[in-house]
Amino acid sequence: MTDCSVFFISDGTGITAETFGNSIMAQFAVKPRHVRRPFIDTADKAFQVVREINAVADREGKRPIVFMTLVDEDILNIIRPCRGKVFDMIKTFVEPLEEEFAMKSNHRVGRFSDVAVDREYNDRIEAINFTLEHDDGQSARNLEVADVVLVGVSRSGKTPTSLYLAMQHGVKAANVPLIPEDFDRGFLPPMLKPFKKKCFGLTIDPARLSQIRNERRPNSKYASIENCRFEVQQAESMMRREGISWLSSTHKSIEEIATTILRDIRPDRLIY
Amino acid sequence: MTDCSVFFISDGTGITAETFGNSIMAQFAVKPRHVRRPFIDTADKAFQVVREINAVADREGKRPIVFMTLVDEDILNIIRPCRGKVFDMIKTFVEPLEEEFAMKSNHRVGRFSDVAVDREYNDRIEAINFTLEHDDGQSARNLEVADVVLVGVSRSGKTPTSLYLAMQHGVKAANVPLIPEDFDRGFLPPMLKPFKKKCFGLTIDPARLSQIRNERRPNSKYASIENCRFEVQQAESMMRREGISWLSSTHKSIEEIATTILRDIRPDRLIY
Repeated sequence: MTDCSVFFISDGTGITAETFGNSIMAQFAVKPRHVRRPFIDTADKAFQVVREINAVADREGKRPIVFMTLVDEDILNIIRPCRGKVFDMIKTFVEPLEEEFAMKSNHRVGRFSDVAVDREYNDRIEAINFTLEHDDGQSARNLEVADVVLVGVSRSGKTPTSLYLAMQHGVKAANVPLIPEDFDRGFLPPMLKPFKKKCFGLTIDPARLSQIRNERRPNSKYASIENCRFEVQQAESMMRREGISWLSSTHKSIEEIATTILRDIRPDRLIY
Repeated sequence: MTDCSVFFISDGTGITAETFGNSIMAQFAVKPRHVRRPFIDTADKAFQVVREINAVADREGKRPIVFMTLVDEDILNIIRPCRGKVFDMIKTFVEPLEEEFAMKSNHRVGRFSDVAVDREYNDRIEAINFTLEHDDGQSARNLEVADVVLVGVSRSGKTPTSLYLAMQHGVKAANVPLIPEDFDRGFLPPMLKPFKKKCFGLTIDPARLSQIRNERRPNSKYASIENCRFEVQQAESMMRREGISWLSSTHKSIEEIATTILRDIRPDRLIY
């Protein structure tokens, strides 16, 4: 059931407005309809959005919620009088900070001024490329420059977590699967030997693993609950033996897993 | 030069606090030191953070800025009296919304309550898998279910943009390179023929392309400025001929490119 409409309005991508607005909305038992309006950087576009907000207010018979991250005063002044309940996310915090810093704000739009010359941005792109080249144990080359190496059975969540670490945090995250051959041998994949200190394990509830694997290869031995139970149990005892810390991905989002890994393996990355 | 310290404190991953706090800080000509403190969910951890903030205040001789997204009242009450300048990001917006909705907030932590059963979350993971399987023209299988197909010369930014579309927006984004063979033939790669409507092009300044390619394969023909100029010119005229819209990735972040693509190709995805 949709009980109201929420607008996210920004002169940039609107991702900040959306991320933050969603975490505010999650505090309420409502199922809103979300409307994103990025790149609102001219008066024309601003008037268009105001018409849209007012039309929704008429149609739904209640004020839509409007989260906005806009820095241009002229655009702000067009949106403010709309018939929504407006939350001005920048101004609310920028004004007290201007006082704190005894400094005027610069009305800068967006996180990166010019990506072609932004060091942090280029580190992120480099990390994404590294992570893709080191997905699923594809390459042992340059593993010494990895920040983190994720290990775990197939489909335990290593790939999305690695990509998230790279994309969000600029962390070079390799990942290496633990496969039946490793369990037969009873040792970690040999390529991991020199890098045990930066290994981190993902495990998963066998029933959930079986469900995920069945979507890919229905009714295979690979996906069977017996095999999933066996692999998970073997992987966990191998990690325990090798002193690799791990967590279960079953009920955790990639955001939570990635943040936990950073905190445990690279606490230095929490300060930058 | 680091002029102050900024803390991001959260009972969850702290990503909301960080994303939002950074866009606020970007409004000021300061170069702060960033300290992330995720998962602050017990009184002990909260007292520890307060000690850390106070120590920084003493050392730097000025108040650190503290952005916090915390929902538990007891934890909030421990952090609030610290010697930083505290911005309570949840409360500031939640209280007026409680009034608007005539409803109490539920103090929920995090974006996903349980990912194992969250539809939106599972759509994102599925999109990431699809995007990886369809990176760099690897597979023509199931291209009909792609939401977007990115095209462009090698190293124009297709892969990071595709992954971002999948991870942030749950969009199934395939990508297919335009290569010298396509230019010789004078046609789009045949696998794209039925899907021209959902194709979107990335182009890039030849000098920047040459720089990026030189990092990978120094002094190759592939990376030479002449070849980069030729490929970019050929790709642009092919996209023009085929009626594929495109943008230049040279000075744009993947966030901006992804949002522009959504707006142009899948405006329905801006409402959800």
